[in-house]
Amino acid sequence: MSEEAKNERRLLVAVDGGGESMHALSWSLKNLVIENSRDTLILLYVKPPKEPCNSCTTSGRLLKLDVCKAIDKYSQNVANHAIERAKKLCEDLQHVKVETRVENGDPKTVISEMSEKLNADILIMGTDGYDGVQRRDFLGSVSNHCSQNVKCPVLIVKKPGSSSSSDDDF
Amino acid sequence: MSEEAKNERRLLVAVDGGGESMHALSWSLKNLVIENSRDTLILLYVKPPKEPCNSCTTSGRLLKLDVCKAIDKYSQNVANHAIERAKKLCEDLQHVKVETRVENGDPKTVISEMSEKLNADILIMGTDGYDGVQRRDFLGSVSNHCSQNVKCPVLIVKKPGSSSSSDDDF
Repeated sequence: MSEEAKNERRLLVAVDGGGESMHALSWSLKNLVIENSRDTLILLYVKPPKEPCNSCTTSGRLLKLDVCKAIDKYSQNVANHAIERAKKLCEDLQHVKVETRVENGDPKTVISEMSEKLNADILIMGTDGYDGVQRRDFLGSVSNHCSQNVKCPVLIVKKPGSSSSSDDDF
Repeated sequence: MSEEAKNERRLLVAVDGGGESMHALSWSLKNLVIENSRDTLILLYVKPPKEPCNSCTTSGRLLKLDVCKAIDKYSQNVANHAIERAKKLCEDLQHVKVETRVENGDPKTVISEMSEKLNADILIMGTDGYDGVQRRDFLGSVSNHCSQNVKCPVLIVKKPGSSSSSDDDF
């Protein structure tokens, strides 16, 4: 690895607390992040778009303010938990700066926008990176979108099946 | 970067002599390959499938043996040239083992198969990695296919436009 790589690289990792994104983070910590460098690791969690309160939602229902608050609180707790798990994985690396971001919106749009906004040198993500129905298809589409539309290099890490790998199972 | 990463990693780079794959290789040399390690860099070039000689081709034409030989020779020369350019880029890295492979076939199929066959720890490719009509769309589809189907991590490096980057222009 040349000296040129050691100047303040910004590595953006899309995390959601699921095994795929944790595996992607773990792989990157072992293979990409340089210990005792000026690398900055940015952990990005994207929460689903907020439902509008006391107005028509996309499904035509009205949500009361207290219900909205409860949903927001739950969503924030899930985000905090995912970010904390990811930060814990990074603890073994000495002197690597870790930043965290929690954003709202459509994952593929937010991740693409944040890659640029945060001047990422590389975007790292699991192939199945977000919760939801049809998780695999949905997240395949997120990684496809990002690999085609994000300007910086994109590293897509697929979590190996338990039958084909001895990697840690997050 | 932990000690765990320094054990004989095999980094497979899909090259075609074009600027996109050369940029992907260059980025990886600066950011991923570990100097003075036991990393092995495998440069893979995929030639188009061979036309059958003295038999019906896919387009219904007959090709004579001497024409086939001329096409093969030209194709091999292009492959050799691309591999030599890629090897030259690697010369600055000390003690990194470089292997080369030239294969025939459909790029996305061959790259996926070789990733597994060669026990790659990571596959590296440019987004627009192969010559042909509608190069961008075709190669987008190659990188999409590989990022979804190859088991090891896939790094997709997009060559920056000249207006948005000061990177070397290969």
